[in-house]
Amino acid sequence: MYTVPEGKIIKVGVLGATGTVGQRFIALLESHPYFAVHALGASARSAGKTYALAANWKQTTPIPSAVRDIEVKPCAPEHFKECAVVFSGLDADVAGDIEGAFRTAELAVFSNAKSYRRDPNVPLVVPLVNPFHLNIIPQQRLLHSPPLKKGFIVTNANCSTTGVVIPLAALERAFGPVESCIITTLQAISGAGYPGVPALDIFDNVVPYISGEEEKMEWETLKILGELADPAGDGTLAFDMHAHTPLRVSASCTRVPVVEGHTETVSVRFARRPAPSPQQVREALAAYTPVVQSVACPSAPRHAIWVHEEPDRPQPRLDRAFQQGAGVSVGRVRQCQVLDIKFVVLSNNVNIGAATSSIINAEMAILKGLVAV
Amino acid sequence: MYTVPEGKIIKVGVLGATGTVGQRFIALLESHPYFAVHALGASARSAGKTYALAANWKQTTPIPSAVRDIEVKPCAPEHFKECAVVFSGLDADVAGDIEGAFRTAELAVFSNAKSYRRDPNVPLVVPLVNPFHLNIIPQQRLLHSPPLKKGFIVTNANCSTTGVVIPLAALERAFGPVESCIITTLQAISGAGYPGVPALDIFDNVVPYISGEEEKMEWETLKILGELADPAGDGTLAFDMHAHTPLRVSASCTRVPVVEGHTETVSVRFARRPAPSPQQVREALAAYTPVVQSVACPSAPRHAIWVHEEPDRPQPRLDRAFQQGAGVSVGRVRQCQVLDIKFVVLSNNVNIGAATSSIINAEMAILKGLVAV
Amino acid sequence: MYTVPEGKIIKVGVLGATGTVGQRFIALLESHPYFAVHALGASARSAGKTYALAANWKQTTPIPSAVRDIEVKPCAPEHFKECAVVFSGLDADVAGDIEGAFRTAELAVFSNAKSYRRDPNVPLVVPLVNPFHLNIIPQQRLLHSPPLKKGFIVTNANCSTTGVVIPLAALERAFGPVESCIITTLQAISGAGYPGVPALDIFDNVVPYISGEEEKMEWETLKILGELADPAGDGTLAFDMHAHTPLRVSASCTRVPVVEGHTETVSVRFARRPAPSPQQVREALAAYTPVVQSVACPSAPRHAIWVHEEPDRPQPRLDRAFQQGAGVSVGRVRQCQVLDIKFVVLSNNVNIGAATSSIINAEMAILKGLVAV
Amino acid sequence: MYTVPEGKIIKVGVLGATGTVGQRFIALLESHPYFAVHALGASARSAGKTYALAANWKQTTPIPSAVRDIEVKPCAPEHFKECAVVFSGLDADVAGDIEGAFRTAELAVFSNAKSYRRDPNVPLVVPLVNPFHLNIIPQQRLLHSPPLKKGFIVTNANCSTTGVVIPLAALERAFGPVESCIITTLQAISGAGYPGVPALDIFDNVVPYISGEEEKMEWETLKILGELADPAGDGTLAFDMHAHTPLRVSASCTRVPVVEGHTETVSVRFARRPAPSPQQVREALAAYTPVVQSVACPSAPRHAIWVHEEPDRPQPRLDRAFQQGAGVSVGRVRQCQVLDIKFVVLSNNVNIGAATSSIINAEMAILKGLVAV
Repeated sequence: MYTVPEGKIIKVGVLGATGTVGQRFIALLESHPYFAVHALGASARSAGKTYALAANWKQTTPIPSAVRDIEVKPCAPEHFKECAVVFSGLDADVAGDIEGAFRTAELAVFSNAKSYRRDPNVPLVVPLVNPFHLNIIPQQRLLHSPPLKKGFIVTNANCSTTGVVIPLAALERAFGPVESCIITTLQAISGAGYPGVPALDIFDNVVPYISGEEEKMEWETLKILGELADPAGDGTLAFDMHAHTPLRVSASCTRVPVVEGHTETVSVRFARRPAPSPQQVREALAAYTPVVQSVACPSAPRHAIWVHEEPDRPQPRLDRAFQQGAGVSVGRVRQCQVLDIKFVVLSNNVNIGAATSSIINAEMAILKGLVAV
Repeated sequence: MYTVPEGKIIKVGVLGATGTVGQRFIALLESHPYFAVHALGASARSAGKTYALAANWKQTTPIPSAVRDIEVKPCAPEHFKECAVVFSGLDADVAGDIEGAFRTAELAVFSNAKSYRRDPNVPLVVPLVNPFHLNIIPQQRLLHSPPLKKGFIVTNANCSTTGVVIPLAALERAFGPVESCIITTLQAISGAGYPGVPALDIFDNVVPYISGEEEKMEWETLKILGELADPAGDGTLAFDMHAHTPLRVSASCTRVPVVEGHTETVSVRFARRPAPSPQQVREALAAYTPVVQSVACPSAPRHAIWVHEEPDRPQPRLDRAFQQGAGVSVGRVRQCQVLDIKFVVLSNNVNIGAATSSIINAEMAILKGLVAV
Repeated sequence: MYTVPEGKIIKVGVLGATGTVGQRFIALLESHPYFAVHALGASARSAGKTYALAANWKQTTPIPSAVRDIEVKPCAPEHFKECAVVFSGLDADVAGDIEGAFRTAELAVFSNAKSYRRDPNVPLVVPLVNPFHLNIIPQQRLLHSPPLKKGFIVTNANCSTTGVVIPLAALERAFGPVESCIITTLQAISGAGYPGVPALDIFDNVVPYISGEEEKMEWETLKILGELADPAGDGTLAFDMHAHTPLRVSASCTRVPVVEGHTETVSVRFARRPAPSPQQVREALAAYTPVVQSVACPSAPRHAIWVHEEPDRPQPRLDRAFQQGAGVSVGRVRQCQVLDIKFVVLSNNVNIGAATSSIINAEMAILKGLVAV
Repeated sequence: MYTVPEGKIIKVGVLGATGTVGQRFIALLESHPYFAVHALGASARSAGKTYALAANWKQTTPIPSAVRDIEVKPCAPEHFKECAVVFSGLDADVAGDIEGAFRTAELAVFSNAKSYRRDPNVPLVVPLVNPFHLNIIPQQRLLHSPPLKKGFIVTNANCSTTGVVIPLAALERAFGPVESCIITTLQAISGAGYPGVPALDIFDNVVPYISGEEEKMEWETLKILGELADPAGDGTLAFDMHAHTPLRVSASCTRVPVVEGHTETVSVRFARRPAPSPQQVREALAAYTPVVQSVACPSAPRHAIWVHEEPDRPQPRLDRAFQQGAGVSVGRVRQCQVLDIKFVVLSNNVNIGAATSSIINAEMAILKGLVAV
């Protein structure tokens, strides 16, 4: 496996750089050991301004001085030619066209948008779960005519999906397939971007509906937890959507008055009988070591899953900043009277639920030799 | 059935009158057609003061002028002798002894506390669901020696239980037994009383744990939805805990930054196959008419269950005040991919979840001739 | 003075009917003794739909049944010909043209928009302060060619101005001119309309700036508290901007995470020496009886100014609903170490700060015979 | 001036270690270059437990591993004998006796409590303003019999006072005495400690009163901004309370729904005529360099006052974490129509408003040779 040499700098670009996810990319990349922000793209309204002027900066840390004066460009590939990696925090309404054009221009795109998540040749990667899905990239390149040499698109999952597939992956690794899963999410307002949710809609309130969110969770979970298989035995890879053991996922998504950090209550039923005990589940979650840790991706958290023993944790305000939001926190592991086991998971929707996942995915793609650096 | 004559006034007392639930009793009783607040009880600290001075009034309507100058008494039966009905908003740590003493003193107690809910001779009544459980009162009186003539205790349910058993009762009436039910609650801070939850614990936060709450929901639901049976055929009544069709309930309780109104996501599985469709469920919920409506309890809501067609309702801030919080709002009725049907229910935890339930229970007990007026 | 006969119905229209202020007009008018909503105007996007479909109803009371099925019209005078009174909750960017056209079409317009507030022939009326400014209406009509017979525009003040001029008017009536006034506002998010303030901007936050707000407060206060004079002695009326005793107002406006109700801290210096004592000020505020009370405008509050003795009141959540938000609450009247007296005032920005003011102004204009009914 | 040698470790103790301010001390000290937490004191309820068990840890960073297993002691001097510095986050009701006993036991106490702030021999030091007030320590020691050799008490100011005296000090240094000052505070809930403010009191609300707070601001400001003089010329030092130019301060204190960060609107009048312009004020604030910066106290912020040019800053959520909360942010510097200049200041009430001030005071006392290390 490739290793990034000490001191090497890899130039990266950020699309949608002025938005909520774009700003988080820039805040996180400030202290990255080898990624350096080189180009910033945003809408025509921002293009031509310095980043400090274009961004309505809403992070609690100041704008990194290295990007303050970078001129924001339109989201066109010619401005990003020198970037080995392009991170996309674009809105879904424009992401499809722009990211496609970047791929065609032989750029490596790591996207938070939903546009390509259902594409059968685009991997949907939660880095603490299924980085081996990156193996479809060569096949993705071949679909172009002529085949691409460097360009590709990798997506990461919806923020609420990300929080739940990490513990589910740990459970499947330890106990075999999960058969069904009922989830209720309590999602933070930052998940809707900026300006996003009007204050009058969410103050002193819960909104028990987020358009399209439940469908995303129910579908993405299958792609992420499923295999990358060769069904015909002819070398053509396909995502099997957890076909070996059908998995039914039922989600109820709500928005709550929390700035950052998605809380989810989860009940699961295992295929295996008898089901594991709560204590076995706790141990399996705490012991979960995803491959991105063993290959030393610099942005991987030390603890993929932190298991709380306190009865009232995790909580978004207290736990979302732990490990810079790169892992998830699980608590309240106990029997479910209807399925087998229930627990609570907390994930930082802007970090591991968005920007951090893209960054670790890029680190992993570099280690796998998929990115020319 | 007895009817309260036009113009008749029935004197009532309120225990725990200065607390959150006690204040709501007083606010609701202000415009009651026949109940009139006659005596107020609180702790020694408040006793001897006028109510206006003793209560740290937190309602959004002013203190009713009729109670401003009532002298608050200690919670001893001798001060409530003239009250045909006594409502209790006492804290659980003192409710057991005080309410027991009031019953022994031949007073009719309608309590929000948990102390007697598990007593096999005390009915646990959600008035829109199981007022027929009041039929155990004669048996409750016989347990005393000598038997009581007028005294008894009726409890109402925990606020989060109340919200969910109302739609479950409607579903069971229409489609037969429910077999299992998975619930996540998003509970308001007013459910914890005053001072209750410290602001630092719940601002910009979710607390995924409320001590004892899940156990209450899982147990109370069975008592409320079960029958009042005569198992030995000897006239001895017993609550059967939904024995005819075992019902498994799994609850995950969370506290969210909302002042008033509990939101709950609910998934249910019916015994009957095939299960009803979402549209059939919607119609059954909207058509549900509890007996307290047909006998014209004055505090019963016009709509026991209001079914929303809008995709993003119910919401606590918009729906908690509807019908003075005496009914519940249901929305988002749809297929559950794991059980049969899922939906969202919103109930006002301080009204139908507490004070309003006690008041309707008392109205119902009067109509049944159980209270001497 | 004219009196509206018992049982008479006066048809009114509402412009901007789907917005925050428009919805409040409709909620308040539901129980009005003589105004009946007859026509509703909104943008082209809403026109043609029933009100129930067009309005994204955000009030905590249901849509009045009488308006649910009214067809929303474009804001053109021909649809409002039968309305004796037209209330405007239009946004400032369109209010100028539309309200002008309505006036020209001989309609009586009562507006919340800022567009005409600085017009020297349009009265800026806080109904608990200066309804005598309505006397300029005949002069306003004469400016048209040919002179208008029925049309005119009356504006009410900015919500944060309204809260402070009511106690200032009471103080000037009792103690003579105020000379200077320093105000800090803590304004609710509903003051910015809908969608208004993004949740991410105001959660767990204070925004110490509201564009144009301080200038409005500093200017409007002078027009409202000033006289309607005849400087040249030729019958030409002009607003004197408190010219007799120059009044300096300094405002610092902030937005706080409160849904409804503007809190303001106010320090004042009187011209008169010695200044009145806090107790004298308290008494003068409590005793203030504006003319709209004595002529029995049905929407006037019973108490123009409610003076709190409790040390920690007024508070927006507890006091904004008092008297349906038609009066103001004052508390903490005490010495100011720099000016003379300081106090806190709370006003409901959507009621007396907007819709209620327009309604009382219309009631007053009718009583004065300025509206043909 | 003494310099702490590279690598030297100075043992410190923390009193009230489990409370809000105590936790912040521990979080801040984790990365201190020479202070090392050696002993922790708390109430009898906590004593004997490890810190991890005793503290209900509410910080957003994990408990420092170096203190997790320290056994919490009662607040008695014998457990702190090895500590060169003792920080106190004790509640005012116990701080007087305990801190006095620690001083008598020859310990150097840096306290957040109000108990000794008005003591004429105890300095009240905001480290970015008046560290020269530490010069009274020798006189403080002489009051004991026999005179103390090492023990003393230094207090820091109330959190809302701290935010405002820093810009006032900068203005006085540049433009001479301030003559009067009107302040409104919008204070965060963390200022009240834990459990502190009940959520039901402050959600969707403003509480325009904090007991004793206005008096503290009005008095402390004079002591801090005044001189340490020798009025009789006999070597006896006394705080002159800004006697050379009487300063009148008028404060209105409110609590707002913000977790951390006090916002204050400030209007000032200078003695000097003409008053400086807003631009001159901006420049003077930005240029302000307190002595703790020039002597290189390690916890001093790089910018004592950060001056914002954006019209809508500072804001607590965006600015409270800047420089770890060790400086203050000022914005909206503009003319005041009544006094001379007005502006907005934001300070982190738990950092520079509490723990950080004590820490810098201790660093300064060490540099001045007042602490035996």
